[in-house]
Amino acid sequence: MTMTQSPVRNGVDTATLFATLDAVKQAPEAARFQFRAQNRWVSGTHSQSTIDGFFGVGEERAHEAPTTVDVDHPKVLVGSDNAPTPVEYILHGLAGCLTAGLANIAAARGVELTEVTSTVEGDIDLNGILGLDDGVRNGFQQIRVSFSVKGDAPADKLRALVEQSRARSAVFDIITNTVPVTIEVEAG
Amino acid sequence: MTMTQSPVRNGVDTATLFATLDAVKQAPEAARFQFRAQNRWVSGTHSQSTIDGFFGVGEERAHEAPTTVDVDHPKVLVGSDNAPTPVEYILHGLAGCLTAGLANIAAARGVELTEVTSTVEGDIDLNGILGLDDGVRNGFQQIRVSFSVKGDAPADKLRALVEQSRARSAVFDIITNTVPVTIEVEAG
Repeated sequence: MTMTQSPVRNGVDTATLFATLDAVKQAPEAARFQFRAQNRWVSGTHSQSTIDGFFGVGEERAHEAPTTVDVDHPKVLVGSDNAPTPVEYILHGLAGCLTAGLANIAAARGVELTEVTSTVEGDIDLNGILGLDDGVRNGFQQIRVSFSVKGDAPADKLRALVEQSRARSAVFDIITNTVPVTIEVEAG
Repeated sequence: MTMTQSPVRNGVDTATLFATLDAVKQAPEAARFQFRAQNRWVSGTHSQSTIDGFFGVGEERAHEAPTTVDVDHPKVLVGSDNAPTPVEYILHGLAGCLTAGLANIAAARGVELTEVTSTVEGDIDLNGILGLDDGVRNGFQQIRVSFSVKGDAPADKLRALVEQSRARSAVFDIITNTVPVTIEVEAG
């Protein structure tokens, strides 16, 4: 570690990163977060979510600015194609999670990254969601992530950054393991 | 069904919806889709995905327009808060998927919706991704969806729309079940 010489590496403030880790070690309950999305149907398969407030480090918080993000189905699936599909946002979330972890881990290990790109592909057979074949699942059957990572470390060390990011990725866990989901409906 | 009287209901072209179902019944291989996100690291925990091309109904396709969507971590997690977190996009995808299905199913069942809103909350203990407690998972421990559905049908029928949407939701399946994910790295 060369924290005092280079506290910001890859755009990551490593001094604050390590201080945050130490603070959570002292007060593990600070790490309990709740994130949220508030969605409103627009028309057809088009809806819009607002992402703003969240809970963390013991109190209610908000992002610097609220974000609105649209979702729709493409025309070939009888949508209006105003925005990406729900499943494409899952692929985006996976790429974003693995990449953020990679940058943090690289900074902590003293690796300067120069370029990180990835393509995430998900295969889905719509015979599932269309209810035409009960033997076909509704969601992705397989997801493939292809990373290209460039930086000032040997290839093996760069690969190890991706592996450690995978091992600590929230979204990788959500997708590859099971999360209980409850749904309540107020109807009228 | 009153398709001839009202082919568009809830913004859903029901005639085309049923025609699409019939077409896929005749040619099940048309339902094999591949969706993608292409991500580029910006700085720190900030990255950006482009969502554009996909494969479906036997050929390579693209959305009406490409969408770029950013992702970051909040400042309290040593990010720059340029955009929502990866896990918030998962919640957004879940809301969008359930809501799109709801509108389609309502249209197919002859129910006119007037308002659909939902809040999706995900609980996460960051002792997992911070590597501070091996007994804590990286991803969400629990997700809660709260729908408010208004339309020209009794409450029981409106609730049944949500239940059928859940039963055929791609994102609900991805989150509540397991999806295999492979990661390849080109490093140098």
